[in-house]
Amino acid sequence: MRNPLRVPAAALLVLGMFAAPALSDEGMWTLDNLPLRQLQQRYGFTPTPEWVEHVQRSCVNFGGASGAFVSADGLVLTNHHVALNQLHKMSSARQDYVHDGFFAHTRAQEIPCPDLELKVLWSMEDVTAAVNAAIDTKMPTDQQNTQRKAALARLEQESTTRTGLKTESVELYQGGQYWLYRYRTYKDVRLVCAPEEQIAFFGGDPDNFSYPRHDLDFAFFRIYENGQPVRPEQWIRWSPTGAKEGDLTFVVGHPGRTHRMRTVAQLEYDRDVQAPLRIRIQEQRAATYRAYAARGPEQARQTVSALRGLENNLKRERGFLEILRDPAFLAAKRVEEDGLRARVAKTPALAGPCSGAWNHIAAAERALRAQGRGRQVRDIARVSRLVDFATGLVRMTAEVEKPNEKRFREYRESNLASQRFQLLSPARVYPEMEEPVFAAHLQLCLDSLGAGDPFVKAALDGRTPQAVAHEILSTTRLADVAERRRLLDGGRAAVEASTDPLIAWARRIDPAYREERRWFEDNVESVESLEGAHIAQARFALDGRSLYPDATGTLRLSYGKAAGYQQLTTDVPWETTFFGLFDRVRSFGNRPPYEMPVRVASAEHALELSTPLDFVTTNDIIGGNSGSPVLDRRGEYVGLVFDGNIQSFHWDYGWTETQARCVAVDSRAIVEALRKIYGMGDLADELVGSVAK
Amino acid sequence: MRNPLRVPAAALLVLGMFAAPALSDEGMWTLDNLPLRQLQQRYGFTPTPEWVEHVQRSCVNFGGASGAFVSADGLVLTNHHVALNQLHKMSSARQDYVHDGFFAHTRAQEIPCPDLELKVLWSMEDVTAAVNAAIDTKMPTDQQNTQRKAALARLEQESTTRTGLKTESVELYQGGQYWLYRYRTYKDVRLVCAPEEQIAFFGGDPDNFSYPRHDLDFAFFRIYENGQPVRPEQWIRWSPTGAKEGDLTFVVGHPGRTHRMRTVAQLEYDRDVQAPLRIRIQEQRAATYRAYAARGPEQARQTVSALRGLENNLKRERGFLEILRDPAFLAAKRVEEDGLRARVAKTPALAGPCSGAWNHIAAAERALRAQGRGRQVRDIARVSRLVDFATGLVRMTAEVEKPNEKRFREYRESNLASQRFQLLSPARVYPEMEEPVFAAHLQLCLDSLGAGDPFVKAALDGRTPQAVAHEILSTTRLADVAERRRLLDGGRAAVEASTDPLIAWARRIDPAYREERRWFEDNVESVESLEGAHIAQARFALDGRSLYPDATGTLRLSYGKAAGYQQLTTDVPWETTFFGLFDRVRSFGNRPPYEMPVRVASAEHALELSTPLDFVTTNDIIGGNSGSPVLDRRGEYVGLVFDGNIQSFHWDYGWTETQARCVAVDSRAIVEALRKIYGMGDLADELVGSVAK
Repeated sequence: MRNPLRVPAAALLVLGMFAAPALSDEGMWTLDNLPLRQLQQRYGFTPTPEWVEHVQRSCVNFGGASGAFVSADGLVLTNHHVALNQLHKMSSARQDYVHDGFFAHTRAQEIPCPDLELKVLWSMEDVTAAVNAAIDTKMPTDQQNTQRKAALARLEQESTTRTGLKTESVELYQGGQYWLYRYRTYKDVRLVCAPEEQIAFFGGDPDNFSYPRHDLDFAFFRIYENGQPVRPEQWIRWSPTGAKEGDLTFVVGHPGRTHRMRTVAQLEYDRDVQAPLRIRIQEQRAATYRAYAARGPEQARQTVSALRGLENNLKRERGFLEILRDPAFLAAKRVEEDGLRARVAKTPALAGPCSGAWNHIAAAERALRAQGRGRQVRDIARVSRLVDFATGLVRMTAEVEKPNEKRFREYRESNLASQRFQLLSPARVYPEMEEPVFAAHLQLCLDSLGAGDPFVKAALDGRTPQAVAHEILSTTRLADVAERRRLLDGGRAAVEASTDPLIAWARRIDPAYREERRWFEDNVESVESLEGAHIAQARFALDGRSLYPDATGTLRLSYGKAAGYQQLTTDVPWETTFFGLFDRVRSFGNRPPYEMPVRVASAEHALELSTPLDFVTTNDIIGGNSGSPVLDRRGEYVGLVFDGNIQSFHWDYGWTETQARCVAVDSRAIVEALRKIYGMGDLADELVGSVAK
Repeated sequence: MRNPLRVPAAALLVLGMFAAPALSDEGMWTLDNLPLRQLQQRYGFTPTPEWVEHVQRSCVNFGGASGAFVSADGLVLTNHHVALNQLHKMSSARQDYVHDGFFAHTRAQEIPCPDLELKVLWSMEDVTAAVNAAIDTKMPTDQQNTQRKAALARLEQESTTRTGLKTESVELYQGGQYWLYRYRTYKDVRLVCAPEEQIAFFGGDPDNFSYPRHDLDFAFFRIYENGQPVRPEQWIRWSPTGAKEGDLTFVVGHPGRTHRMRTVAQLEYDRDVQAPLRIRIQEQRAATYRAYAARGPEQARQTVSALRGLENNLKRERGFLEILRDPAFLAAKRVEEDGLRARVAKTPALAGPCSGAWNHIAAAERALRAQGRGRQVRDIARVSRLVDFATGLVRMTAEVEKPNEKRFREYRESNLASQRFQLLSPARVYPEMEEPVFAAHLQLCLDSLGAGDPFVKAALDGRTPQAVAHEILSTTRLADVAERRRLLDGGRAAVEASTDPLIAWARRIDPAYREERRWFEDNVESVESLEGAHIAQARFALDGRSLYPDATGTLRLSYGKAAGYQQLTTDVPWETTFFGLFDRVRSFGNRPPYEMPVRVASAEHALELSTPLDFVTTNDIIGGNSGSPVLDRRGEYVGLVFDGNIQSFHWDYGWTETQARCVAVDSRAIVEALRKIYGMGDLADELVGSVAK
């Protein structure tokens, strides 16, 4: 027996991203560079270019997370927890779709989402050479960085104009490659069906990142264009059989961020500064939401979406920090890095450009240690929707007056429509809920940075955080879409003339924000990107192109298989069933978070309880893959990724397949639930009707 | 989140056996010294003397394991895995009760066990003063040990003669106390009901020591006297309701061995010599059985009981060794020991008798390191039933000619009837199976000790292990009960005259065996017992009598509560249900060891699947507690202990209740299975008929 309590984390980590990956299911691969040899060797399968394009154009970027077209009539399937923010925005005190679920029995009953923009990756172009050609490597680093960004802005804009497709530049391999990704975008997205949150997120925070698992974490949307359901050129067919244990599985989606190529200096910064502070900020924010929720059921309802997100992040980030703090983990990373540096030093063609790369990055991290704590505390993004509206209006109206190449990247011409869509969201805001959260964050700024900090001075102007937050959020008119539209359409002049107290506040803090950002881009981003590119080029030169880049929130494919694992001396099965759901409910006496919605409990005798419910695979995923389809080798839909198990936290930093697993809802459970629990037989037919002949 | 993979074992261990135990559910208490104050403080419950006597006399010692009377008609309930050895002995190639189960629908169908002797603890007497008075502490240690054993033999025999009850002396607190335990014994025990092993041991070796769990690990026997079911004076009433989460629970049974009071020197010997060697020997033996089992289904059937025992022990002992090898564990033990030694040194009345105790024990362990490896290898007990018969006949017929006080303890007058019962067992033996196991063990002796070792010389006489084993086991007549009876009745003369090759072999190795044992008793046992007593007396003097002794295979009571725990960031429920069983079966595709017997699978729709199946409590247990009843505060039957979870391995060395749990079959599952799966409604009625009014 291995003592399950003391498997050293680092021993599980195969830090072998640059060793032969044919031995494992490792990798979040870009679709232009799939590991064809490994796939053939391990699974006897080689996808055709048509297979790849079909998969690429069937997958949907769901506001940073993932989803896929699953019918000819524009039906899109993602996770309930990905949909949660929209469900929450569509709900009210009177009608709580999060708690009660939502079930459209006709097209007419489908409800438009207030501010959901979906996009489908249509084409990709490697522009590394063009970007590098625009950089004068004799210039100081910050100026090279400015040149780099200007080149990307120009390339994006040229592509958008030429193709009519929204184009975003993508930096892969820490700057080793630059690509243009072109998207079809959709802004008329309507809710079709979502189960009750209690069964979508059965087991709540304890079961989150856990397995075995018993969740129906799905939600259906339909994309419309010109008032009609879109007829996608490509969509994923529903598997008539579902997956079997051992089957080859593909996951295609948008993994957000991994840190596998970070240098030791970068990881040490994360460990010592970034991660602990992020955790502290989020803990404080979660506590503030909970206090607000305690005021009553309606207040509790208002906090659901934010609290779920914070709890999810906290569980994950505490796990990450524990890995970073494991001395064996960083020691193994250091061995790997020293090995690479030694190989580089022995290779004359690389030793030159790479000579200072690691040291320069380490110096940037040292600068960040001194400055970085303040940076994170001052970051007020996502503290409050109203505050985000105000800072967005102030920044966007100022930025659009600059030439495209000189703007903050999020306000480049190609992204303005998306920005406008978000700023004009009709979704209800809750100023009373946002006020204590905003106040608490300002208090944290004051406590951490002191009254003399430029941001604090601008933000508080000598008053208390509570007074500032109350005065501003109780009187701002930005909850009104018309007011936001007036300011946006009026541009910089309208914003500067506005007497709205929140706009005035956003104007006051704007100089501090811009100075902060300039400092970071000039001193850290520039070094990480330019020196990261040197390291990546060295890796390409030494190990060929059979690498995959760290996750960047863009489309990736991972391959693996449906497989259980061993834990605590026994076997964890590759799949669970509805029997297991009923077991867990009864075992905990139907006590939260293990209680079952009445609709589900009532279906006990209608359900075929042996229907597979959730399952695990070895597919390499990370946050952002939520909502990704699990496909079999025919490219058919067999599962819906919604989580990783607790051991998959290691995947942020490296690959292991001993216990780490991707967790998915089984496609058969979705059909069974639609038919037997929710009376959504027509929706089930629409899915199954898409079964390949 | 705590990283579940790296909780240091020692951090879980509250090495607080001598601190205030009121803070936890710690302790395997003798029934004369229950922790009444803690029970009242923690659970507001104080058992009456009648409650205690009722429980004591309802419990049954089941050949070293545990069980209890559960009806007025002598019905006894224990685990299937405790019954396994008898079930195996009653089975044959034609009729396999292990695989198929056994179900007596009438008293006439109940089958007598071949060699099962049960005993019930009737009374206890503290004889510490009498034993100590018989020891002349000025004599050398080995002679003190001889005096001690002679006193115990005399006291046992006087009690047996006076009371008519089989009396066994018990050494508690490493020699700190001596007691006489008097038993009623029963030799006519009949099998009533046993489910199929596949459901009793569902999940097999992987799920063993695991939780959540889904086993129906029960078996019913009935005790007869004079051809009639015995009418016990006391028996446990069946609870009409079963346990609830959080309920106070008692476990009463016979925990075998714990090592919580072992000194660091003793633990280091266990870690370095004893545990690794035991594991090696058992691994080799298991491999030999598996090779034999591979010959065919009947051979596989023959090995079931032995293999289950070996696998169970190996899983446990590998776990123990891992704890012993955790440097933090032994460091914590050393801190505790140093603390006690410092307190002793400061107390003049203790410093004298205790002055050398730890050093003397350490010296004995050093001697054992030199000698002990050979000892364990030479130990041929339980290698083969035939060999055990032969060595038993040779030893017993020689020993009984000595005065009672000078005999090996197992041949004292008070134990002769039990010895005779075992030696004359009519249960079938399988010489063809025993031969390779015996040969493999002799090979291990030869390999480890060399041809010149006195035992090896006597055992092999220059031939190969295989030749010796084959010649002896293929020609011995000891499989025949009549031959054993002839030798036993003929006494030493008959044994010495026997030409049976196995008897001749046992005579040849007898001198080496006796020399080995004498050396150990004079040089190690004597020191451990006499110096252990000094340490125990110091503990009593410093901390009062609110201690419990290490487990000694004698009757103990532990208290606790029905409670789940946290593991890998989520909650493990306190109970499972039949839903969970069906889930696990389907999750693994009904694949061994997760397949379900046809009878159980067929009952899916008859069973109330939400019936509680297994549950966990914080009761302090260890191997030997198998078959113990779990009682509620009314003293009613709510569960049947059959295992501890993997974290309970720590309980061998100290107490923790963070995750360590006792695992039991729920009383409601037993009744549900009897009625809905096995058509044993009458048996269920007999149980439920015993429900207290």
